Formats: sequence, C-alpha cells, structure tokens
Amino acid sequence: MEAYLGLHPADLADRLQRLPTAEARAVLGQLPRPLAAGALAELEKEKIVELLQDQSPEQIAELFRELPSEVIADVAGALKPKARLAALNLLPAAQAEAAARLLQYRPDSAGGIMSDRFISLGENQSAEEALQLLRARVEPKTDEISYLYVVDEQRRLTGVVPLRDLVFAKPDRLVKNLMLRRVKSLPAEADQEAIAREFEHYHFLALPVVDAQNRLVGIVKASDAMEIARAEATEDMQLMVGLSGEERALTPWRKSIGKRLPWLYVNLATAFLAAAVVAVFESTIARWTALAIFLPIIAGQGGNAGMQTLTVIIRDMALGELTPGDGRKALLKEAILGLINGLAIGLVVGVIGWLWQGSLALGLVACGAMLLNQVAAALAGVLIPYGLKLARVDPALASSIFVTTVTDVAGFFFFLGLAALAMRWAPV
Amino acid sequence: MEAYLGLHPADLADRLQRLPTAEARAVLGQLPRPLAAGALAELEKEKIVELLQDQSPEQIAELFRELPSEVIADVAGALKPKARLAALNLLPAAQAEAAARLLQYRPDSAGGIMSDRFISLGENQSAEEALQLLRARVEPKTDEISYLYVVDEQRRLTGVVPLRDLVFAKPDRLVKNLMLRRVKSLPAEADQEAIAREFEHYHFLALPVVDAQNRLVGIVKASDAMEIARAEATEDMQLMVGLSGEERALTPWRKSIGKRLPWLYVNLATAFLAAAVVAVFESTIARWTALAIFLPIIAGQGGNAGMQTLTVIIRDMALGELTPGDGRKALLKEAILGLINGLAIGLVVGVIGWLWQGSLALGLVACGAMLLNQVAAALAGVLIPYGLKLARVDPALASSIFVTTVTDVAGFFFFLGLAALAMRWAPV
Repeated sequence: MEAYLGLHPADLADRLQRLPTAEARAVLGQLPRPLAAGALAELEKEKIVELLQDQSPEQIAELFRELPSEVIADVAGALKPKARLAALNLLPAAQAEAAARLLQYRPDSAGGIMSDRFISLGENQSAEEALQLLRARVEPKTDEISYLYVVDEQRRLTGVVPLRDLVFAKPDRLVKNLMLRRVKSLPAEADQEAIAREFEHYHFLALPVVDAQNRLVGIVKASDAMEIARAEATEDMQLMVGLSGEERALTPWRKSIGKRLPWLYVNLATAFLAAAVVAVFESTIARWTALAIFLPIIAGQGGNAGMQTLTVIIRDMALGELTPGDGRKALLKEAILGLINGLAIGLVVGVIGWLWQGSLALGLVACGAMLLNQVAAALAGVLIPYGLKLARVDPALASSIFVTTVTDVAGFFFFLGLAALAMRWAPV
Repeated sequence: MEAYLGLHPADLADRLQRLPTAEARAVLGQLPRPLAAGALAELEKEKIVELLQDQSPEQIAELFRELPSEVIADVAGALKPKARLAALNLLPAAQAEAAARLLQYRPDSAGGIMSDRFISLGENQSAEEALQLLRARVEPKTDEISYLYVVDEQRRLTGVVPLRDLVFAKPDRLVKNLMLRRVKSLPAEADQEAIAREFEHYHFLALPVVDAQNRLVGIVKASDAMEIARAEATEDMQLMVGLSGEERALTPWRKSIGKRLPWLYVNLATAFLAAAVVAVFESTIARWTALAIFLPIIAGQGGNAGMQTLTVIIRDMALGELTPGDGRKALLKEAILGLINGLAIGLVVGVIGWLWQGSLALGLVACGAMLLNQVAAALAGVLIPYGLKLARVDPALASSIFVTTVTDVAGFFFFLGLAALAMRWAPV
C-alpha cells in the first residue's frame, strides 16, 4: 500500500489499470480519498465502470463525492440507469445537479467533455475585485488558470481577460475595458473531433463552451483536447483494419474477440467475392497453372498500394485538411500515381514473368493487369473513404477491408481476364 | 491581398500552404512583417524551405528577423549549410546566437522543439520584484505564461512558481519560499515521442528543458507536444503501410512517388517469396484447380487478422503502454485469439468449401490451413514490431508488408502443403 501513496495520480491510475478488478478495488478502498479520486479521474472510463460494478449505490456515491462533476457525468453515463439514479440521489444536491447538467450532453460533444470549474468575471468588476474573487476560489489545479472569461448579467459570454493582463492592470480599471471582445468559443454540441482540431490549429490552452443562448456553461482544456486527438488517431488506425472499439495490447482476449471476429467475417464474405472471380476462370487456370503463381502478386501489390492511398486520405480527413473540393484533386493525383507505379511495377513483374516462366504472353498479361490494378487501387483508396463519409459513417470504418476487396476482385479479374483473352489469341 | 489581412496567422498559413510557391512568396512579401512572420511560424517546415529556395541571403534574413529563434533554427537547419550561414550572418548578433544555440540540438529532441522565450526568476527575488520583471517583459503571446521557473546563480533549475501563487503572495515574500521544489523537467536530449507522452500523461501546460548541468535552457509547450503527438500518430499509420515521410492527400505526385514506390518494390520482393511457395506446388494445383480459388481466401484472412494484431501492438508501443514484460502476455493473448478466430473462420470456410466444391477433403484442408494461418498471423503481428524494435528501427516501419508476407507465405504453404498431403492419402 505504501508504494502507492507517493505516486502521482496519473501513475497510480496506470498501476490500477493493470491490476485485476478486485485488487484495484481493494487498493482504491484503502487510499486517502483525494488520492483515490485523483487516480479515478485519470482511469479509463471502461475501467471505472468495471470497478463500480456490483458496488452498492452508497459505495459508488462515496467515490463520486471526491470526483469533479465532469468525471461523475462521464462515469454515471456509462452506468445502468437504475444504478446511476441511485448513486446520484445520494450525492449532495449541488454536486448531483452539476453532474445531471453535464449528463444532458452527448459524451463526444463539447458539453460532454467540458469541465464546469471555471471562473467568470462580470464586466463591471474592477481588476482588483476580480483578483480578490480569484483569490477566494482556491481549488485544486487552479494553477492552470490562464484566461478568465467575462459574462454579462444573462451569463452570456462577452469577452476574455488573460490572467496576466488582469495582474498588471490598474486596480480600479474595469474588466470590460481590459477584456478582449473577440473571444473564440465552442457550441456545447460541437463534435469532439472538430474541437481537437481547433486546439491544434490555434494552440489554445483552453476554450469556453457556450449554450444556444451564448451563455457560458464550461471550459475545455488543451489536455482534454490532446487526449481526444490521441483517442481519435487510435480509433482511425483500428477502424481502418476492422477493429471496433479502442483495443489495447493487454485487453483480455474475451473482449477482443467481439471487436475483431465480426470484421473477419466481413472480410471472409468479401474474400468469397474475389474467390468467385477466380472460380469463373477455373478452366483458364486449369490450362495455364503458372497463372496461379502470379495471381497473389497482382492482388497483393494492389492491396499495398490501396492501403497507402487510403492511409493518406483517412488521416487528412481526420485532421480536417481536405475540403470537399479537394476530393477531385486527390483522385487525380492518385490516378497519376497509380499509372506511374503500375507501369514501374508492371514492367518488373512482366519481365520476371517472361524470364521465369519463359512466356512472353504471361509477362504481358501480368504487366497489363498490374497497371490496371494499381489504378483501381488508387481510385478505391480515395473513393471508399469518401463514399463512407457520404453514407454518414466514419470514413475509416473497415475501409482497408473494402479497399482490398476491390484490389482482389479487380486484380483477379484483370489478370485472369487478360490471360483468357491471350489464350484465345495465342493458345498456350 | 485585403482578404489575408484579417486572418489569424494559423489560417493564413493554411491558405499559403495551398498556394503555389511563387504566389505564396508574393503574398508573404506584401504582408505586414509581423503577420507574415506569424504565418511563417505556423507553416510546415517543408513549405518554408520551399518558399526560401532561390531567395537571396538578404531576403531570407529579412524574414528571419521577424521569427522566434526556434523557428529560425528549425528552418535554418533544413537549409543548405552555405545558405544557412549566409542568412544567419546577416541577423543581429543576439538573434543569430540564439538560433545557433538551438541549432546544436537534434530536431526531434527537447532541445530541438523548445522555445527559448521563457521567464526565469531568482530564488532571492521578492514576489513584488518578480511581478515587476514579468511586467517589463512584454512579448507577444505572453498571456500563455502559467508557470515561472526559478534558477540559482548558476542558472540551474531549482523550482517553479505558478503565476497565480505569485500574484496572491505577500509582496515581500521571497520566491524561494513560494516555489515548488519538485519540478519536473526534460533533458535537452529527450526524444520528442517520449515528451508527447509525458504531456499527455500528466496534463502539463509547459515543461522546462535543462542541459546536462541542469541549467534551464528552454521550455516546451503543450501545443508543441500536441503537434508532435499528431505527427507521430500520422507517421505510425503511414510507416505501417510503407509510406516514408509524412505525406498529405495533396502532396504533389512527384514527391509521393519517392515515398511510396520503394516500398511497393519491397512488397513485390516479398510477394515473389509467396509466389515461390505457390510455384513449388504448381503440380498440385494443376491436378486440383479448385485450390486456386481458396488460396487467396486463406492468405487474405491471415493478412486481415495480422493487421488487426499489428495495429493494436504498434499503437500501444507508440503510446508507451507496453512494458518489456508485456510482450510475452500480448503474444499469449494473440495466440489464443488466433486459435479461436482460426477455428471460427476455418469451420465456415471448411463447410463452404465442402458444399461448394463437393469435396470434404477440400473443406478439411481449408479449415486446417485457416486455423494454422490465423495463429501465424497473430504471432507475426506481435513478433514483427518487437523484432523491428530490437533492430532499433521504428516498430511501425513497413510492418504491414512484413506481416502480410508471413501470412501469404504461411497461408500458401499450409494450404497447398495440406492439400498435397491429402492428395497422397486420397487422390482427387
């Protein structure tokens, strides 16, 4: 137990994350409440829910009491409605209300990730009054305050004062004369992916969140935005290859199966599509078995090229760097690349095919099919994520499975089709 | 031109990024110097170097004069040595020295990314003196100051004072009695990937950078860390599929070819490995052409499963969440998953093979090969990134190419090998 006491809450959370649930619960129970709460706030939501399972509402409420309302809202949102209500009802009214207020926002919106611990100033306060107010609000982590937000009587956001300006202002100067009126804010429904992009683009330390009436309801901090950006990048990578839900290397295998097997079945279905193309040409292969050797090369190269294109497109989409008009430019670029790469690889494959199998026809067929399939790969790598986006699903969703379906089907079709033509022309 | 004047420097940089070089240069030349410099600081380094190409040392120096030294160092580091020296020599001595100091650090180290605009306090200053000092240092973006670092006579870092604590301290209180002595710092050689992880883990707004003698030499800000984390995530995704260097959707195709084609050739070489396996079994296929239909299914499913495993491992490695001891656990987990998924998919493929082709032998062979190949995929997905790491290269480097090589080679070998055995046993 002693070993845990000197740890930073973030490190303690790491340790707890690795302990079996029962043990983690025992450790948490013995820690001083503020430290336990600090660590809980850093844990992954999934783990917290696991820790709270089978705990009585009293036990849950006891832990909640130490947590900031945005963490309570996060965790409560993941509990079963009955358990949530029971636990919230046991909290002090102010805390329960704060959590309930935050619970009304979608978890992946500005409202869902914001904190409600912010300090707002009135326009007609003097700099001195404002500083007094700040001084009185001693809260943990207040060293992170860099900006102070200014609201009018209706709590509508009207400006922002950097702490530094407030410090150096004449004591009787009014906040409204100090504040910057051009203040960037986030609507409470703003999507978290867009928020992460804003932070990265403009290097904000924090952004205020406002409701539909422009009333200040919370703040989002840069560290939250960084966490979101990280989670979104992981999600993109994993979704692409058919992995639903953020999986870690040490996620128990029982859980991993559910995230992976369904997509393997999707891949299987698409693989049979490609196999059907091969089946159509079975008699061609029967007469010219060397084709079977080159079949996977044509398809595999297409798959790799398609993944290259896809990865570039998905990432740019996620970073918000592709305007709608860019799609056409990207498609053109990829088509050119596909042609050039197709020619460059096709020639090599063609010459090898010719020399290895002693058949110029095979070389020509392989070269032609490679060229065509590289272009198909390029087009699929652009059109599939755009198509998914049009269908209003995540453009990364299993996109590598769809792209390789295209490159397999097209690769087999081009190669075996050209071979069948060649055989008609000059029987093997 | 007017359209550019009202823009935030980050948005202006976005516009410039999209303009052809000559046009961007013209726009930059006409903008007020501070705005031009602000936008330059936000541009990608590659673009800046492009903009400065063929410019005279005088023109380069004129732009440099407006830039913070860390951006000068970044850009100058990417120029040819001769152009760099010529431009730096035209700068005011203090600025040239500051840039030269920063240039001694590797670009991907703490020293390479840090800013040298920080405010340090002496231990024996009073709170009032410290505030006066702060007030005198009016610099752009100083509203971002949240912590002040304290150094002794030898400029060694001894503590940190949150701005807020300084503001509310009694005026005659000494800094040494106000400061927190447990201050986290980064060695100047620290790797940027590790730095991004520290920021994310502990939610820092900024961290001080120290040299080997623990002297304060700069600070790294959260926004820099976020940019690094983003770039590293992009690099991981792109390296995995064989894309060297950060490529964007609208990177000109001439540049993209150099990033992609070499890896397509690597993939081609590995594809011939797999093709060689098929060639060994050519006579088997000649007698049993239905095998050619199932060949890509066995290999493709292995490739998909291998990519799932690989993606999880690469991402966890990048986020620093895999301790050396975790490798064995991850391997065991993946092996179990491979067995289960292999059985689940193998049975389906086996039954389909049996019913479709009316051959129980084909079904059994396909089922067995699928099972074995799923396990091979799982092992390759763990062992390849660990192997690359052992070889001291990025674990993501072209790893998907290597994994699919294993799943192709192993898949073909298992499937055709089992088929050959089955044919000996019960000739088709």
